[in-house]
Amino acid sequence: METNRLEAFSDGVLAIIITIMVLEMKIPHGTEPNMAALEPVLPVFLSYVLSFLYVGIYWNNHHHLFKACPKTSAGIMWANLNLLFWLSLFPFVTGWMGENQFTRIPSALYGAVLLITAISYYILQRLVIKETGRDSKLATSIGNDWKGKASPILYAIGIGLSFLQPWMGGALYVAVALMWLIPDRRLERAMPDHA
Amino acid sequence: METNRLEAFSDGVLAIIITIMVLEMKIPHGTEPNMAALEPVLPVFLSYVLSFLYVGIYWNNHHHLFKACPKTSAGIMWANLNLLFWLSLFPFVTGWMGENQFTRIPSALYGAVLLITAISYYILQRLVIKETGRDSKLATSIGNDWKGKASPILYAIGIGLSFLQPWMGGALYVAVALMWLIPDRRLERAMPDHA
Amino acid sequence: METNRLEAFSDGVLAIIITIMVLEMKIPHGTEPNMAALEPVLPVFLSYVLSFLYVGIYWNNHHHLFKACPKTSAGIMWANLNLLFWLSLFPFVTGWMGENQFTRIPSALYGAVLLITAISYYILQRLVIKETGRDSKLATSIGNDWKGKASPILYAIGIGLSFLQPWMGGALYVAVALMWLIPDRRLERAMPDHA
Amino acid sequence: METNRLEAFSDGVLAIIITIMVLEMKIPHGTEPNMAALEPVLPVFLSYVLSFLYVGIYWNNHHHLFKACPKTSAGIMWANLNLLFWLSLFPFVTGWMGENQFTRIPSALYGAVLLITAISYYILQRLVIKETGRDSKLATSIGNDWKGKASPILYAIGIGLSFLQPWMGGALYVAVALMWLIPDRRLERAMPDHA
Repeated sequence: METNRLEAFSDGVLAIIITIMVLEMKIPHGTEPNMAALEPVLPVFLSYVLSFLYVGIYWNNHHHLFKACPKTSAGIMWANLNLLFWLSLFPFVTGWMGENQFTRIPSALYGAVLLITAISYYILQRLVIKETGRDSKLATSIGNDWKGKASPILYAIGIGLSFLQPWMGGALYVAVALMWLIPDRRLERAMPDHA
Repeated sequence: METNRLEAFSDGVLAIIITIMVLEMKIPHGTEPNMAALEPVLPVFLSYVLSFLYVGIYWNNHHHLFKACPKTSAGIMWANLNLLFWLSLFPFVTGWMGENQFTRIPSALYGAVLLITAISYYILQRLVIKETGRDSKLATSIGNDWKGKASPILYAIGIGLSFLQPWMGGALYVAVALMWLIPDRRLERAMPDHA
Repeated sequence: METNRLEAFSDGVLAIIITIMVLEMKIPHGTEPNMAALEPVLPVFLSYVLSFLYVGIYWNNHHHLFKACPKTSAGIMWANLNLLFWLSLFPFVTGWMGENQFTRIPSALYGAVLLITAISYYILQRLVIKETGRDSKLATSIGNDWKGKASPILYAIGIGLSFLQPWMGGALYVAVALMWLIPDRRLERAMPDHA
Repeated sequence: METNRLEAFSDGVLAIIITIMVLEMKIPHGTEPNMAALEPVLPVFLSYVLSFLYVGIYWNNHHHLFKACPKTSAGIMWANLNLLFWLSLFPFVTGWMGENQFTRIPSALYGAVLLITAISYYILQRLVIKETGRDSKLATSIGNDWKGKASPILYAIGIGLSFLQPWMGGALYVAVALMWLIPDRRLERAMPDHA
């Protein structure tokens, strides 16, 4: 209950981030309204799909994390704001990567924001576990957290690949997103109502 | 209670979608501020009215659906995000159709997004019914769900008509919206407080 | 409690409307960053202040109205969406009036949206009173509702004045807003916690 | 509980303000997608970081303030809307300062908005203390409120410095933000759950 407002504020910010990204898909002007007019929109659309997935994954994980968190602290408040800050850069890096059709620097920058966001989430998770206790259901269920640990490494590799073959960086970011999409029963199992 | 945050997040996204569509109505620049200046805004306004209606209908149905849903699952979470994704494309397709005054391809694309959104809602509804039980009040009250089944077929016909006579496609989309506007007592009757 | 989600959704839409209006205040480009650069922004700023006031007044009244409303109905849902629709036009008419420095047609259009919004609010209020009962505290406290009845008439006069002397229309809109700002103890008195 | 909707609406507005500021970071167009293309974005990014910090600080303080406030009043409602109004100007002044690389007038205007926002928060805090009582835990814990009193003076000095050496004004605004970031245990200690 004490975390209600933190959750509501985060929901608001995430809802806006996930929605304003679509504004980067500019309506074609000065062209015939046919299929060809949609062609330049396609890469922006694809990068939007990827970023929608990522914000959706973060919302999902955030939702499970705070369902298990009884109260907030100054540390959790700021770790949460820090996470939201990096997520708020998604529309910018998504748009830039989309408009430049997944070229080097934009792909690497996208990966860099993914990397820092993942680290920010990790810090928040540590603080919430500290609040709930090391032996809490939440802590047990997160367990060794191999996804959380593998992701930053994969993003770092993706950044490197972006300089060699931009599409390979993009492919790796997609792969990591799909890895997270596979239902993760750890956190769900920890919830009171699933106990 | 467990669905609170899913509802709050969806409300946030729907509130933003319904509101940013109005940003596609660009303030006239470089013209005398008279009635003629508003003329090019009119088709965008009309497509805005139609899309506002559709998002309103989805919010209404979503509201009733989750009032009857006791808890969430990974499937419901992602089916809901999938629905929100397609709804988030409304501002783009609405603006494109409006600016091109209901010509072929934009009208067909608008219908295609309506179609996929309707299917996405249907999937979400199936999952919620699965969670509440086949004999639940919700399942009984939705019943044979003729509106939910007729809509995708009508959208598909609308897409076809858009290629023949774009205004006929648009007219069909309007007709389907009005069909949904007629109060649907099924779901309301299933609510605890109406029982 | 049953009105929670209607209130949350309305809060979301009103929060967005009140905030995106500020986007019409375009950052000056291609000019020296001095006081003169802010001059063209001034009328947009003034119309923003006025519209912020109006949306604030509607949020305030909406808040009091639903605090006293025990449950929703299909009629209330759609009357509420209708109100939100007209409020969503505020950013457009505010920006157009501001950019054209309160000239005729934009001032009249602004008044027309104020007028339809006031009527929409009146309809919503009637439906809520119908739900709470004619002898409810809410109905008693709203009483003869002279502000609600005078406002549409004053807006209509403002529209007329806009054609004669645009600044007089604007001045009347300001006057009506100030009339609403004066604390209205009627509704507050009806609230359980003030009883 | 009575303040729920005021908090929800404020959360919505603050979530939007904090997020739309990022829209001022325009995606580079018409340049090669390399590091040099990001150079003009850098000052806008830096001013975004600063404003994100400030909105985060206000959200944090607002959160603590209303956790301790049992009920609303017409005065609190309007003092809160007044605070939100000045906060809503952050995207404009942030963008202008960022795009002009912290030159005189934009830096002074940024400071002026910080100053008026701080005074608005002070007024809101006075009204909430009046509602909770002079001997309430909230009032005791806020105590002499040296940060709240020092900030407006520092902003005023910052405005003055902006005219002499714009970077010194900016540096002072950063310093005040950092001063607020240092955990303030006064308000937290006053919360029921920390008692």
